[in-house]
Amino acid sequence: MTMKVYLAGPEVFLSNAKEVLAHKSELARAAGFTPLAPGDLEIPRTDSKYERGIAISAIDEQLMLASDLIIANLTPFRGISADVGTSFELGFMCALGRQVYGYTNVAASYLERTSRDYYKGMINSDASGKLTGSDGLSIEDFDMADNLMLEGGIISRGGVFVRKAVPDGRVLTDLAGFKECLILAAEKYLR
Amino acid sequence: MTMKVYLAGPEVFLSNAKEVLAHKSELARAAGFTPLAPGDLEIPRTDSKYERGIAISAIDEQLMLASDLIIANLTPFRGISADVGTSFELGFMCALGRQVYGYTNVAASYLERTSRDYYKGMINSDASGKLTGSDGLSIEDFDMADNLMLEGGIISRGGVFVRKAVPDGRVLTDLAGFKECLILAAEKYLR
Repeated sequence: MTMKVYLAGPEVFLSNAKEVLAHKSELARAAGFTPLAPGDLEIPRTDSKYERGIAISAIDEQLMLASDLIIANLTPFRGISADVGTSFELGFMCALGRQVYGYTNVAASYLERTSRDYYKGMINSDASGKLTGSDGLSIEDFDMADNLMLEGGIISRGGVFVRKAVPDGRVLTDLAGFKECLILAAEKYLR
Repeated sequence: MTMKVYLAGPEVFLSNAKEVLAHKSELARAAGFTPLAPGDLEIPRTDSKYERGIAISAIDEQLMLASDLIIANLTPFRGISADVGTSFELGFMCALGRQVYGYTNVAASYLERTSRDYYKGMINSDASGKLTGSDGLSIEDFDMADNLMLEGGIISRGGVFVRKAVPDGRVLTDLAGFKECLILAAEKYLR
């Protein structure tokens, strides 16, 4: 009985997505899991781009339904937060009661990134310590890597959210966090 | 037998979040639904910010489990994509097989926004028409409002993703799309 792991993350957008996902799959197999990744199933022919998008979504949902575990790459993507597709998938697997792990290749907290990268330091603190950006929007301050639903979903199910810095230029490709998730999940479920 | 609707969206970060959520709740009730919104339950006292974040996540999951329907505000938040917390919640409700509706107050497609707002027009197209940004990352081109998992999750369950432009300055607060979701869901489930 092998355990299937769904490999979620924005690497699907890399120019060498296939190679990266093949590498992640290989690492997952080496750790004792059966990997399932977006792109593993053939996409049916469709009449429009829109229908193609819907078809890919259906396939990814199918792969998740077939998986016992998700390892989600929650590294910030095109902005200060995780990829929204990956966030959707993490929520999906949480609701199914599957095992959930996540990692990010950026060590700074959501508060630090939002303050520095999005508001360029222009944030305010009121008398009670509540933080807001220059646009008046409040900023989550929970010592978390991203929105609390992501970390809460993982932690409350006994999973782990690995957060570590990686060398410059490797933010979207480094696999140290991924490997750590594999090791932790294998120790817990495969021995 | 009333149908409960979970009100998901980044309005929790507005300075007048309570008022806005009270207004959305009132509109939901007027449409015949029982609204459930983040903030409806009391957050237990915790010893750290981190535990407080986990506690809020647990409450929001509880509210979703109690809901028959979600209306997710998927308007871009602090960047080019929807709020990741809301995206998580949409995925969560999709996996539970609940009814799912979404809206965005920005009419431009993900491709348009990413090209214009994130890459400032610096995108490339290869011979096959595949689009990439100046950093080499591919750009989803499915005539969708955001990542395909969001729209696919909604459409494949018979929901609707309302996409409409709103007046300047009302992007995070306008409720026309929300009202449209309420009307469509009420027509389908309450008559």
